[in-house]
Amino acid sequence: MHKSRLAGFIIDCQGSALDEAARFWSEALGIAVKPSSNPAEAQYRTLDTPPEEVHIEVQRVDHPSRVHLDIETDDLEAEVRRLEGLGARRIAQIRTWWVMEAPTGQRFCVVRPQRADFAERANTWPD
Amino acid sequence: MHKSRLAGFIIDCQGSALDEAARFWSEALGIAVKPSSNPAEAQYRTLDTPPEEVHIEVQRVDHPSRVHLDIETDDLEAEVRRLEGLGARRIAQIRTWWVMEAPTGQRFCVVRPQRADFAERANTWPD
Repeated sequence: MHKSRLAGFIIDCQGSALDEAARFWSEALGIAVKPSSNPAEAQYRTLDTPPEEVHIEVQRVDHPSRVHLDIETDDLEAEVRRLEGLGARRIAQIRTWWVMEAPTGQRFCVVRPQRADFAERANTWPD
Repeated sequence: MHKSRLAGFIIDCQGSALDEAARFWSEALGIAVKPSSNPAEAQYRTLDTPPEEVHIEVQRVDHPSRVHLDIETDDLEAEVRRLEGLGARRIAQIRTWWVMEAPTGQRFCVVRPQRADFAERANTWPD
């Protein structure tokens, strides 16, 4: 058995002006940018959504701009296999997550648990 | 004065197999597909997320598959002008909504109020 659920949406912005990109999306959506001093998160800015809701991040990327979603899980390999069984395919493993492609064509990521209420509210799947 | 906020995310799927696309995303995210008998919504399937959270829909589209977000507003023209002031540009008006492009490159839509608690929880902007 393992767990997973939708973690959130990532607004991928091509180019180096991350703070400017985060400012646009913060003002467009009316959601503040959370302060961050974690150097490991230099390519991300997180919007300050309620903790029990899906998270929204602005990310600096090298590929063309898009929006993608993250699925959070407590067992990366089991979740990737479950999604392969539904028709998704592996694209690349990056540090602690997998990039996958849906049978409908969108890329998305499978990541470690992100939100505090993951254990309590995520879906449970048989392995 | 007018109001707006993030309404939700739309998973745009190229091609005609909408129910199959909705089934993949429903099973991948562990969120049921809401039943719909509204013929005006033949190109959408809505996932059954909590009513106070952002909505998630699967849409059949002709352009390449992607994910886009919707901003809901009680004054379409005022909100489009506000977003233009932030650097977004108008792409096309379709029935009751505007397709816009962010300065960071993603397309998104500005739509009429979607969620029941819009009036109570949306952001208020000066015109």
